[in-house]
Amino acid sequence: MKVKNELARQILGEVLGTFVLLLFGCAAAAQVKTSRETKGQFLSVNMAFSVGVMSAMYLCMGVSGAHLNPAVSLSFCMLGDLPWIKLLPYSLAQTLGAYLAAGLVFLIYHDAIMDYSGGVLTVVGPNETASIFATYPSDMVSIQTSFLDQVIGTAMLMLCILPLNDQRNAPAPKGLLPPVVATVVLGISVSMSANCGAAINPARDLGPRLFTLTAGWGTEVFTCYDYFFWIPLVAPMVGGVMGSIIYLVFIQWHLPEPEDESESEEFNDQTKATKHNNKTDELYYKMSAL
Amino acid sequence: MKVKNELARQILGEVLGTFVLLLFGCAAAAQVKTSRETKGQFLSVNMAFSVGVMSAMYLCMGVSGAHLNPAVSLSFCMLGDLPWIKLLPYSLAQTLGAYLAAGLVFLIYHDAIMDYSGGVLTVVGPNETASIFATYPSDMVSIQTSFLDQVIGTAMLMLCILPLNDQRNAPAPKGLLPPVVATVVLGISVSMSANCGAAINPARDLGPRLFTLTAGWGTEVFTCYDYFFWIPLVAPMVGGVMGSIIYLVFIQWHLPEPEDESESEEFNDQTKATKHNNKTDELYYKMSAL
Amino acid sequence: MKVKNELARQILGEVLGTFVLLLFGCAAAAQVKTSRETKGQFLSVNMAFSVGVMSAMYLCMGVSGAHLNPAVSLSFCMLGDLPWIKLLPYSLAQTLGAYLAAGLVFLIYHDAIMDYSGGVLTVVGPNETASIFATYPSDMVSIQTSFLDQVIGTAMLMLCILPLNDQRNAPAPKGLLPPVVATVVLGISVSMSANCGAAINPARDLGPRLFTLTAGWGTEVFTCYDYFFWIPLVAPMVGGVMGSIIYLVFIQWHLPEPEDESESEEFNDQTKATKHNNKTDELYYKMSAL
Amino acid sequence: MKVKNELARQILGEVLGTFVLLLFGCAAAAQVKTSRETKGQFLSVNMAFSVGVMSAMYLCMGVSGAHLNPAVSLSFCMLGDLPWIKLLPYSLAQTLGAYLAAGLVFLIYHDAIMDYSGGVLTVVGPNETASIFATYPSDMVSIQTSFLDQVIGTAMLMLCILPLNDQRNAPAPKGLLPPVVATVVLGISVSMSANCGAAINPARDLGPRLFTLTAGWGTEVFTCYDYFFWIPLVAPMVGGVMGSIIYLVFIQWHLPEPEDESESEEFNDQTKATKHNNKTDELYYKMSAL
Repeated sequence: MKVKNELARQILGEVLGTFVLLLFGCAAAAQVKTSRETKGQFLSVNMAFSVGVMSAMYLCMGVSGAHLNPAVSLSFCMLGDLPWIKLLPYSLAQTLGAYLAAGLVFLIYHDAIMDYSGGVLTVVGPNETASIFATYPSDMVSIQTSFLDQVIGTAMLMLCILPLNDQRNAPAPKGLLPPVVATVVLGISVSMSANCGAAINPARDLGPRLFTLTAGWGTEVFTCYDYFFWIPLVAPMVGGVMGSIIYLVFIQWHLPEPEDESESEEFNDQTKATKHNNKTDELYYKMSAL
Repeated sequence: MKVKNELARQILGEVLGTFVLLLFGCAAAAQVKTSRETKGQFLSVNMAFSVGVMSAMYLCMGVSGAHLNPAVSLSFCMLGDLPWIKLLPYSLAQTLGAYLAAGLVFLIYHDAIMDYSGGVLTVVGPNETASIFATYPSDMVSIQTSFLDQVIGTAMLMLCILPLNDQRNAPAPKGLLPPVVATVVLGISVSMSANCGAAINPARDLGPRLFTLTAGWGTEVFTCYDYFFWIPLVAPMVGGVMGSIIYLVFIQWHLPEPEDESESEEFNDQTKATKHNNKTDELYYKMSAL
Repeated sequence: MKVKNELARQILGEVLGTFVLLLFGCAAAAQVKTSRETKGQFLSVNMAFSVGVMSAMYLCMGVSGAHLNPAVSLSFCMLGDLPWIKLLPYSLAQTLGAYLAAGLVFLIYHDAIMDYSGGVLTVVGPNETASIFATYPSDMVSIQTSFLDQVIGTAMLMLCILPLNDQRNAPAPKGLLPPVVATVVLGISVSMSANCGAAINPARDLGPRLFTLTAGWGTEVFTCYDYFFWIPLVAPMVGGVMGSIIYLVFIQWHLPEPEDESESEEFNDQTKATKHNNKTDELYYKMSAL
Repeated sequence: MKVKNELARQILGEVLGTFVLLLFGCAAAAQVKTSRETKGQFLSVNMAFSVGVMSAMYLCMGVSGAHLNPAVSLSFCMLGDLPWIKLLPYSLAQTLGAYLAAGLVFLIYHDAIMDYSGGVLTVVGPNETASIFATYPSDMVSIQTSFLDQVIGTAMLMLCILPLNDQRNAPAPKGLLPPVVATVVLGISVSMSANCGAAINPARDLGPRLFTLTAGWGTEVFTCYDYFFWIPLVAPMVGGVMGSIIYLVFIQWHLPEPEDESESEEFNDQTKATKHNNKTDELYYKMSAL
């Protein structure tokens, strides 16, 4: 019964990891909204997504690298840490995990959502419940600002997590990558979620949006706010790549050569996490050849 | 005076550990409720349970493994980390610790509870104080949803803590297991406590409920909400096992064989925490033989 | 200019450490109160005391062991980690540091306190500002409950921090003792501060109370609430000893003998923190001889 | 394309690091203000600055030491860890990074700021938005108190971060310096930001203030509150030096000589962070010669 195929194992890992991430996050959104902020507040939801990232990373980092996000997978493809052929399977797995989590959150909070919404599942208005699952923009935000917002949020994500595992820089202990990455995500949530909810992750947004489409919220989940849904799909992919390139160009290329790699390996290398030093060197030569 | 019997030592550890967990948690619930949220808020209670988990784990991890929860003990029995014969003693010890902590919280907050409740200890209504101790469901939640809620919450607990100490995956540093587990518990508290209070632990719920029965709240603590009390007793046991199996089937079985165990052992093995690699292999062979 | 006398160095360390602890804590209390909770809330003050503990421990752990609290010093005397002769100097140093910090907080927040209080420094009433510095009980709390509250709070402190550095149990990494202890203090603050402010530290309370006496709040800071001031002086001393004994009797004595101490020493022993294994063995023999 | 000049690399690092710090911080201020505290609260802004410090430190600690603050750079010059010749380039780089971040925050939150302010960018009054970027004092605070406030805040910063990397004291693990420093910054934010916003960093304040000058808020950003702007420029420089000297005089000089340095170096020395033991010895001899 052991899954011998590496890609199949990785897909399992990403499905389950993204499932855990979204279960924490969307459940917290449901808890805060349906309790009308008596059992939590805006910050609780940010914290739940953060804990979700930490838990999901510990869960599947040893299996699939714990990308949990097509924008992260795309960046790692560009950095040479993930074969391009795996980008689509990873992304679909992440979206599936997010879809399943949204479904389970709906089951758990079904009674509360029905009570809160008066039994009518709507996408806009005072009793809307669609925002428990997918992200929607604030009223005053233009489409250009939304796009920029998602690009910058995801660029910050990659710019802040790439150094954490870069042995030439000042990395975090490998066994503590998950809480440190989770803290970065918390920071993005408390500072860049006012415009359009800080999805910064196409799977995190599309999976639950598809779920609400199938569960009774109607096609408005895609059409509302001038077809806003494409922004958290496209902009994070742009932003992730942009953030990674900024890290490479402004920091990584200029780091001194490591004198002796052995010291750091002995410390804590149980994790099979991505090593992009050698790979990014290749990229460096490619890009500097231009 | 040294207790030579291992089980007796472990029972002492579990009693004291669960006592500490509940003292933090119930005292925070008392503080927030009796101060009418002027000295804390919903999040404070979540944080107190989280710190309680961390402190209790550091306190008794070296003695008893710091299960603190019959659902965790049952899962570890299934995983081969705890002999089945110890399940009942562990569970009773945990319930006793929770009972004692509830009693002490009542002593410390006696004046405040009497002032808040007008001297009448009630289970429902605006001045109820029973929810300081045991968990009670929200009004709109059906019995099926409550059951599912507790199953999923406890499944998430096991699914998220099993990888933390799995040397084949990407484990947390052993000396930092307690804060990481505590963070997982915080995440569950902020996302899955709206329906019925996120007990996810039969001892955490039954001990204080028994205390309130004996201390003057009356039999209503058991009969209210259609005899809700059995849900946090049974559902977490189901959920804990379910979460453990999900981890085994979707992640653990497919992890690569460890190349060299020595490296991780040298790092920080003062803790006598559970090692389930070998044991879960056995379970794998048993289950794959089906 | 180097201070060669060890006790003088330790006193310097404790003065400065307790100064830092109280500067964070009382400044946060001033910020929250004088801004009428627009720039922080109850939780901010808890967090500030917690960060204060962490910072003060990193500052003076290598010099004096970072007790920061006469109740902790007394407990370590009993455990054999601090000579009894040093208890009084340590306690005075801690009280002096707390006094100085209160004075500096008054300077920094002088304008805000005068604005908030209308220029009249009072101990009770809606515009009181004495509680920025020392702790005062809630109105409904009896003297017995206050005493019990401070005993239990300090007992929890010792019970939860002693295992953190016990190499036979499951200790925290030495370089991370400060944040873990700080988290325990945060837990106590959010769960046991409703009755009388969770001083759990005679120096933390007496130093600032003496400052308010000298700075214009009058003798009421000592006489109010039926001479409450003696409770945070005496009860924490009782509680600290009680918590230490509980840890010894229920956990420490029953821990297995360490097989090989060398492994843990190589890890991170830059800190000169207390080692109580051998000393508590002595205590064990003394007590078991009774 | 590799930047061979060390100073150029360091400037790149400080620009990008300070950019990240301010992007988190000012974006959170914009989120909280323009959402009228529905999407965050005072504490969110404190947390965002704290996460910003952590992320910025991981980003550029291996390149430039991650000062991110002219007051920190000045202190390290005095301690002998940074050549004096680099103080001005570092400070300008930090200010430039802060300026750029303010500009990007304005772009991201342009729609929200226009909606909140009614399209009029003002520095005072109920709809002011200048405080999203630079710091402004509270009305009741005198110029002397503001100066003292910034001196003490920055002194606390240096006093609390210098021990973290002092191998003779009880240092934090090097791979975890960023979160520990970030926690210190959080502590300062929740306790010393009521008077004038806890800039404690000339670059953090001047960069965004210059941006608001150029972006339409007018010269009032410099002239308001009696030309307050010079206080967060000058006072932190004084405070940083003062805090460093206090650490040296009261703690560092009296620490025991390290017996064996090798043990700590083997642990985790990937970071190229500052080592001030030898340098501060020099300073000690200079100062004790007076």
